Amino acid sequence: MPEHPPYNERMSIKPIDFTKRSHFETQLLEKAMPPNSLGRLGKLALSLAMIKEGPLDRMQLLLFAGDHGVIEEQVTHSPQEITYQQCLNFAAGGGACSLFARLNDIELKVIDVGVAQDFPSTSSVVNKKVAYGTKNFLKEPAMTKDECYQAMQVGKEMVKQASDAGIQAIAFGEMGVGNTTSASALAAVITGHPVPQITGKGSGLSDEELEHKIQVIEKGIVLHPERDPISLLCNLGSFEIAAICGGMLEAAERSVPILLDGFVVTSAALVAKALDRNVCDYLIACHRSGMEGHALMLQALGCAEPVLDLQMQLGEGTGSLVAWPVVRLASHILTDMTSFENAQVTDSTKLLQTLGLV
Amino acid sequence: MPEHPPYNERMSIKPIDFTKRSHFETQLLEKAMPPNSLGRLGKLALSLAMIKEGPLDRMQLLLFAGDHGVIEEQVTHSPQEITYQQCLNFAAGGGACSLFARLNDIELKVIDVGVAQDFPSTSSVVNKKVAYGTKNFLKEPAMTKDECYQAMQVGKEMVKQASDAGIQAIAFGEMGVGNTTSASALAAVITGHPVPQITGKGSGLSDEELEHKIQVIEKGIVLHPERDPISLLCNLGSFEIAAICGGMLEAAERSVPILLDGFVVTSAALVAKALDRNVCDYLIACHRSGMEGHALMLQALGCAEPVLDLQMQLGEGTGSLVAWPVVRLASHILTDMTSFENAQVTDSTKLLQTLGLV
Repeated sequence: MPEHPPYNERMSIKPIDFTKRSHFETQLLEKAMPPNSLGRLGKLALSLAMIKEGPLDRMQLLLFAGDHGVIEEQVTHSPQEITYQQCLNFAAGGGACSLFARLNDIELKVIDVGVAQDFPSTSSVVNKKVAYGTKNFLKEPAMTKDECYQAMQVGKEMVKQASDAGIQAIAFGEMGVGNTTSASALAAVITGHPVPQITGKGSGLSDEELEHKIQVIEKGIVLHPERDPISLLCNLGSFEIAAICGGMLEAAERSVPILLDGFVVTSAALVAKALDRNVCDYLIACHRSGMEGHALMLQALGCAEPVLDLQMQLGEGTGSLVAWPVVRLASHILTDMTSFENAQVTDSTKLLQTLGLV
Repeated sequence: MPEHPPYNERMSIKPIDFTKRSHFETQLLEKAMPPNSLGRLGKLALSLAMIKEGPLDRMQLLLFAGDHGVIEEQVTHSPQEITYQQCLNFAAGGGACSLFARLNDIELKVIDVGVAQDFPSTSSVVNKKVAYGTKNFLKEPAMTKDECYQAMQVGKEMVKQASDAGIQAIAFGEMGVGNTTSASALAAVITGHPVPQITGKGSGLSDEELEHKIQVIEKGIVLHPERDPISLLCNLGSFEIAAICGGMLEAAERSVPILLDGFVVTSAALVAKALDRNVCDYLIACHRSGMEGHALMLQALGCAEPVLDLQMQLGEGTGSLVAWPVVRLASHILTDMTSFENAQVTDSTKLLQTLGLV
């Protein structure tokens, strides 16, 4: 059990130095192409360079898994066993996340921080279990403060390991039956948007069932009136969300770009921002989820323009996995694209300037 | 000089068999994930399977280059020499297209169909030159019918070579100073939208210069009243647009998926559709260009939902190059993703059905 919280005032993530932007903008303008012709891909190249110069080629996806006591309240169709089964499936190379990671050369780790069952020692699921699932937040806090700190610490350690091993970009994924309920609760409180605007149907609820899910979340929010980020995380959050939150803080502290996935992962980013708003400087929004509330969550983080908008809502970090090749490509533009000068191509903008025509 | 036109009634591209869709939909539903959770990525997987089953791993970009007589009319800032310089640059591994192709494992060929200068034999630019640029369409037809057929035939041959060499998906790129003028003229006539709605600022015109470009295009359209697709292509088109059009017809005939790029390439698709509307079944819209008229062109092709929407407007096939990893990934979903059954994961939808709960 950690004696100290896994974050503190001294930690303080360094904000990005925005004065460097004009330097990178000049670099981009010197590339052998008309100004601004790369649109948002060019902007992405600038954002990445502000975090860290040089191309990114190695990415790791840390997929944290945990179970949720609140599913007692019938907030999802999926039986709890699916969390365990899917983790085994992912670790054995199955599932969307494994396939997408393999196709896009991304290293995938599946980490148990709070699954209700133990994994066989033969599986490659990393055992960092803090507890066998959260408590039902309609009855008691989902996690104790110590449990929450432990889960955050797991996230930080996994990012530290990745970064020490030379990983240049990090993404987070999640698996946990019921976790959109926790994510919605956290997002509604932190963004200030009403629960019905944030909450979606998860893995396919009916209108009536969605209404019930919203009521459960609203009850939970009223039941736990504390509004500081750690209390919110303990009361309404979960092990995988806490681990992702801790991991994001660590990544930002190390200036490692964070490829931000969908609904659940973004709720962890909202908590991280509430702890240290500078974390937002290190987020690259990868996709806008098909879950409607996600757009509002991205706005609250200042990430209004995600790379992809394909109405995916699968979780598992799949939004980040699909977007990675686009992000990687953007990270190569400033360093590897030929300039007008080294390509010996006429810079028509400069030519016109020289001739006094613009 | 080809004796026969490079297309004819007998060619006839086979329409896709839409009755097969439900078979693929069933396959997708059996994957170990909630129904529809892949959003448009899942739809893309279905569209690709309808064209050809099985994953796509090898793509080639055929970049056709040509010059444009209409630049005499001051429709662009860029000097004509840039076409030649950029082709050399691309062929030597420079430019956005080479970088993106290299990063995404795409084979790139640069083909001269109508550049105003000869390339040194030491360069890897493929010499299929039909003429040294088009004529100014305000004075005479841009190409003769024979020239147009020759250029189309080059496109068909290059696709045939690629397909025979085992290429599984094909994209087209273009380089040609002034080619958005030809593309806008073709698109305005074929879609029926007014020239100002279609025409954009290309490589950075002022409002006044855009107005002039629009007038040039409108004059050209009036000057050449023939409305059949080949006459349009000859009168207002260009060598690279004709080559791409021929290449698309060939790819569709061979059931090779076509990754559709931006403004200029899409104008070639509009001509191809006018020759044989079944070509549309084989188009995968890769991106929506920052050139506003492009959205209208995609609509006219029935490709309303492109993979990417990053406001890129660089040409060179870059939209297709950036989107390729997403398309490739989608092509693997039906064949390579684990199903509920083989992953031993509970299918909660089926479970509920069995229990009579849905």
